[in-house]
Amino acid sequence: MSRTSYEGSDGNGGRPLRDVALIVGGGPGVSSSCARLFAENGIRVAVAARNPDKPVLRELEKSHDVRLFACDASDPDAVEQLFRSVGNDLGAPTLVVHNIDGRMAEIFRKGITEADPARVLETLRNSAFSAFLVGQQAARRMLETGPGPDGARGTIIFTNASAALKGFPKSGAFAMACHAKTGLAQSMARELMPEGIHVVNVPIDGAIGWTQADGTRAHWLAGQAVDDNMLDPDRIAETYLQLHRQHRSTWAFEVVLRPWTEKW
Amino acid sequence: MSRTSYEGSDGNGGRPLRDVALIVGGGPGVSSSCARLFAENGIRVAVAARNPDKPVLRELEKSHDVRLFACDASDPDAVEQLFRSVGNDLGAPTLVVHNIDGRMAEIFRKGITEADPARVLETLRNSAFSAFLVGQQAARRMLETGPGPDGARGTIIFTNASAALKGFPKSGAFAMACHAKTGLAQSMARELMPEGIHVVNVPIDGAIGWTQADGTRAHWLAGQAVDDNMLDPDRIAETYLQLHRQHRSTWAFEVVLRPWTEKW
Amino acid sequence: MSRTSYEGSDGNGGRPLRDVALIVGGGPGVSSSCARLFAENGIRVAVAARNPDKPVLRELEKSHDVRLFACDASDPDAVEQLFRSVGNDLGAPTLVVHNIDGRMAEIFRKGITEADPARVLETLRNSAFSAFLVGQQAARRMLETGPGPDGARGTIIFTNASAALKGFPKSGAFAMACHAKTGLAQSMARELMPEGIHVVNVPIDGAIGWTQADGTRAHWLAGQAVDDNMLDPDRIAETYLQLHRQHRSTWAFEVVLRPWTEKW
Amino acid sequence: MSRTSYEGSDGNGGRPLRDVALIVGGGPGVSSSCARLFAENGIRVAVAARNPDKPVLRELEKSHDVRLFACDASDPDAVEQLFRSVGNDLGAPTLVVHNIDGRMAEIFRKGITEADPARVLETLRNSAFSAFLVGQQAARRMLETGPGPDGARGTIIFTNASAALKGFPKSGAFAMACHAKTGLAQSMARELMPEGIHVVNVPIDGAIGWTQADGTRAHWLAGQAVDDNMLDPDRIAETYLQLHRQHRSTWAFEVVLRPWTEKW
Repeated sequence: MSRTSYEGSDGNGGRPLRDVALIVGGGPGVSSSCARLFAENGIRVAVAARNPDKPVLRELEKSHDVRLFACDASDPDAVEQLFRSVGNDLGAPTLVVHNIDGRMAEIFRKGITEADPARVLETLRNSAFSAFLVGQQAARRMLETGPGPDGARGTIIFTNASAALKGFPKSGAFAMACHAKTGLAQSMARELMPEGIHVVNVPIDGAIGWTQADGTRAHWLAGQAVDDNMLDPDRIAETYLQLHRQHRSTWAFEVVLRPWTEKW
Repeated sequence: MSRTSYEGSDGNGGRPLRDVALIVGGGPGVSSSCARLFAENGIRVAVAARNPDKPVLRELEKSHDVRLFACDASDPDAVEQLFRSVGNDLGAPTLVVHNIDGRMAEIFRKGITEADPARVLETLRNSAFSAFLVGQQAARRMLETGPGPDGARGTIIFTNASAALKGFPKSGAFAMACHAKTGLAQSMARELMPEGIHVVNVPIDGAIGWTQADGTRAHWLAGQAVDDNMLDPDRIAETYLQLHRQHRSTWAFEVVLRPWTEKW
Repeated sequence: MSRTSYEGSDGNGGRPLRDVALIVGGGPGVSSSCARLFAENGIRVAVAARNPDKPVLRELEKSHDVRLFACDASDPDAVEQLFRSVGNDLGAPTLVVHNIDGRMAEIFRKGITEADPARVLETLRNSAFSAFLVGQQAARRMLETGPGPDGARGTIIFTNASAALKGFPKSGAFAMACHAKTGLAQSMARELMPEGIHVVNVPIDGAIGWTQADGTRAHWLAGQAVDDNMLDPDRIAETYLQLHRQHRSTWAFEVVLRPWTEKW
Repeated sequence: MSRTSYEGSDGNGGRPLRDVALIVGGGPGVSSSCARLFAENGIRVAVAARNPDKPVLRELEKSHDVRLFACDASDPDAVEQLFRSVGNDLGAPTLVVHNIDGRMAEIFRKGITEADPARVLETLRNSAFSAFLVGQQAARRMLETGPGPDGARGTIIFTNASAALKGFPKSGAFAMACHAKTGLAQSMARELMPEGIHVVNVPIDGAIGWTQADGTRAHWLAGQAVDDNMLDPDRIAETYLQLHRQHRSTWAFEVVLRPWTEKW
């Protein structure tokens, strides 16, 4: 069994023989790590991205049989169509990860007087509103499908950011979007947990590292004594899988992840 | 009167002789109470509403010389124009209250699967995005104007709701909007307090009462022993005025107001 | 004066003709400012301190007719006796301020491995446990006395610190004590607000300034451009009086106060 | 591989060949589940309890080679001695769980005016102060021992309760103790994470179930359709083990666990 597999030989925690994961947002970090780990643990995986034609995604398609879908997750019709397509292709998702933070160069670290209103609204749409759309479709499908053998219908995970925990200066638009996502997740958790749907908010409180071309880990400051001062997306994915596998008698709603060196 | 007295005979806490308040949102509750109280304390008052032609506002115009402005606060150009008009008419605002919660019948108490996406986006625009627009313009004007004698440039108050404190079930869209407003307010406070601008978030955690046609107070449950189990908008306005008059050495950022009988 | 005016000519917000305040903790900062302001607003004032024989307290006795009581507020019998004595002398308190933070040189800014357990326990006793003792006696007396004309029985205010908001490094014992005080205050608020007792937690998030011998204000860093970068205890006292005068339809439970220059 | 084992064949996540766990508090719920699961995953386990002579503990001694120690965890000398004894017997602990909540019949669900001060202080001692003592010794030993191959020195987990999240009415003393524990944990986390020690606060927000004599699960309300509406201590233990195995690049500080049916 691979090192990323951390369950018994049933590989699936008593869930329906075929778990289906849908990851919305297709970057090289958390989304790719999730796709890989989920697939290695016997889950069929779909990834939706505005542009699914990135090399990193095409590679996942080949290596892990990940299905790719083009989708603008801020468009209600597109999100509805996405869930229909995934359902037809793999079956209704039992694990949905919303992995878009909507950070835009145009509004990031911009003072309140500098931020362009059009970009602020776009950020709200791409992050909070798309989280709503994805959460709504996920809830609908899971409620239709009925519970698995352990009583749970599925898991909806919202990847979030430090700005969900604290509104930093020069971060008004991003703080709005991240706080909104937390509010949505909380409301959905209180509404859907009694229906057997596990809703989780995961604020990532720190920079996410990755493996560089030369095989070493990217780290926060070159020349630092340690190279593990950024979050490892593979470890984030492990936490997501553990959250999906938690029994409904013992669910976590919010897990903040941060590196050991982070100030908070 | 000794220096510890906090309502000196100037009635204005050492601020420029003429404070100017702009209240965005024109309902019969908090907005009207603020307009009345501020005017009675020597502040020149403008109220902006989608429809300023309501009887309650026209009455304030007559009784308290309140200036009325028509404004769709979710439209960037309209908000910019509003601040220009108020500035020309009364001078740059030193006290701005954003008093729109964006609650809509169509999304209120709707389960996550029932809420109409178009209305959810409208709620985000009317509440969080309009708060951004108003906050941005307020910050710009206050930064341009320069500090008053006590060093402070002005006060920006965001009226918020219980859903800012907790995402309740069947309240996803509203929780998003209210949490977003909190995130914005926090970020603005951290950014603008060192510039001498007092930013405040006031979640109103309970139902707001009012004086009924027969002169009695509306209360939460007919037949209850007490008639003060809803928040009094006049008392909310008092808190707002006290917050505006706090010295910058001793500022509050968040004040949650609730009735004594409220469960929380 | 109109009904919106919040400081009628009776100077006492409709409460019993003679409000009685008991301030537990007798330093030259918040306690003294409260004693002065309360007395100047027609409230009879008692101050309890381990050592009431400090010059600053003796001066208040002379200038503002403040009654002084010796009391170790971490001793259950002493606290019970204190309330009996104040009751006999001035009447049952309607406004009680717990103003002891228990900070000790021995545990302050000590790493977790360095702090002396005996001092840690002493800190818990002096701060959290004494807050419980004072809160318990205050609740008992207020419940016995019956409500005033506005329905409220009185106000209990806990002065708290930054460490109530966040557990800082090298601050374990102090964070314990401050968090404990918040937990107590919250529980008491939920229990006693429906009985007409206003319970408030006031974390002071910053250094408190004072007037120096030469008449200038103490400030955080000598040579800074501004001298109002520390909280003014007179302003803190103003907030306390405003909180005491809030109507029970519109109560605040927690107010964090900080200077405009504070990082948070 | 047993079902409780969820890691690769190294069974130990790259840590020193022999992890040593010390569980302070010896009930039949979380402590026993932790002892069993940790032992089954190759960790040497010590349990400290006031009375280690309970049948449930003696059984663990036999079945899982768990070492038992008598210790009053609110006594500084006893706690120091405990860590010395465990160190001599099994080696310095790399995983320490503080599992005492200090709930006492005498103060639980007692109104603020009813609680006996002596019991309130005892609760503070047994819960918050003992958490400090155990945390201090754990930190000392881990700092002395030096890091494992993955850079981390060890994990300190504080089991906490709903009263850490919210001060409920008639729960003042317990709210004090639980909030204090959170404050301590936060301070220790900020201080010790950069030293490679993972500090975690786990508020258990709900009733904990157990297996009854007849082999069925205890549940909250007899006659309910479901029997998994209480937290499963075996599942809590799984989360603890996962937290211990998190890489220091990706640590969680706080995980609130609750059943799917819980109101919050």
